[in-house]
Amino acid sequence: MASIFTKIINREIPAQIIAEDEKNIAFLDIMPLVKGHVLVVPKKEVNYIFDMDSKDLADLHLFAQKVAKAMDQTIKCTRIGVAVIGLEVPHVHIHLVPLKTMDDINFTRPKLKLSSEELAEIADTIRKGF
Amino acid sequence: MASIFTKIINREIPAQIIAEDEKNIAFLDIMPLVKGHVLVVPKKEVNYIFDMDSKDLADLHLFAQKVAKAMDQTIKCTRIGVAVIGLEVPHVHIHLVPLKTMDDINFTRPKLKLSSEELAEIADTIRKGF
Repeated sequence: MASIFTKIINREIPAQIIAEDEKNIAFLDIMPLVKGHVLVVPKKEVNYIFDMDSKDLADLHLFAQKVAKAMDQTIKCTRIGVAVIGLEVPHVHIHLVPLKTMDDINFTRPKLKLSSEELAEIADTIRKGF
Repeated sequence: MASIFTKIINREIPAQIIAEDEKNIAFLDIMPLVKGHVLVVPKKEVNYIFDMDSKDLADLHLFAQKVAKAMDQTIKCTRIGVAVIGLEVPHVHIHLVPLKTMDDINFTRPKLKLSSEELAEIADTIRKGF
């Protein structure tokens, strides 16, 4: 069965897409740790990041770098943090999280609940950073 | 002034080095979240990962992949998690953390205190995974 991220890639379920190229996509996490929390996902469905082909892995991280630079331009934060955990959705995803403190990237804390309007506004802001 | 990681690279301060190539090095974090917590560091001192040259960034992640595969071979865990935070030491470092639960990669929780002997034993174990 297609992962939830493949459904986003195929436009079967909606998401606030920030950027996309042939191999990768970036969209807002709908259960963000902080405002501006983005997921970067390879279109090819692989469960575990370290099982990725090395060229695909490098391209994924270079795509993530472009997204992070756009986030740095548009979101107030100290820097963009990175996390890859993967204990839940079995499709590789890099979390890009605007950080002010260490706790901003603590995945055990409660997630924010943002409205569709708030998510749309954040996505519009980040898109301006490209 | 040279960062603490540059001092490790230059063998001015000791560390349990797991692997090294021309551009990158991996060693045990001496304040680990869990046993087997490794830092992967580029030898060229850059503060922020997204300021890295794209070739250097790709090479860093491909080196980290090799280290993570060795960790997967030798440490009991569900998978290897990845985090890049960088609010403390101003020299890029990727945390590779053996995960069983989400809390294993929560940087706000107390760090383990391991003896030199315990660290040496863990490093020996991981080195066998290459």
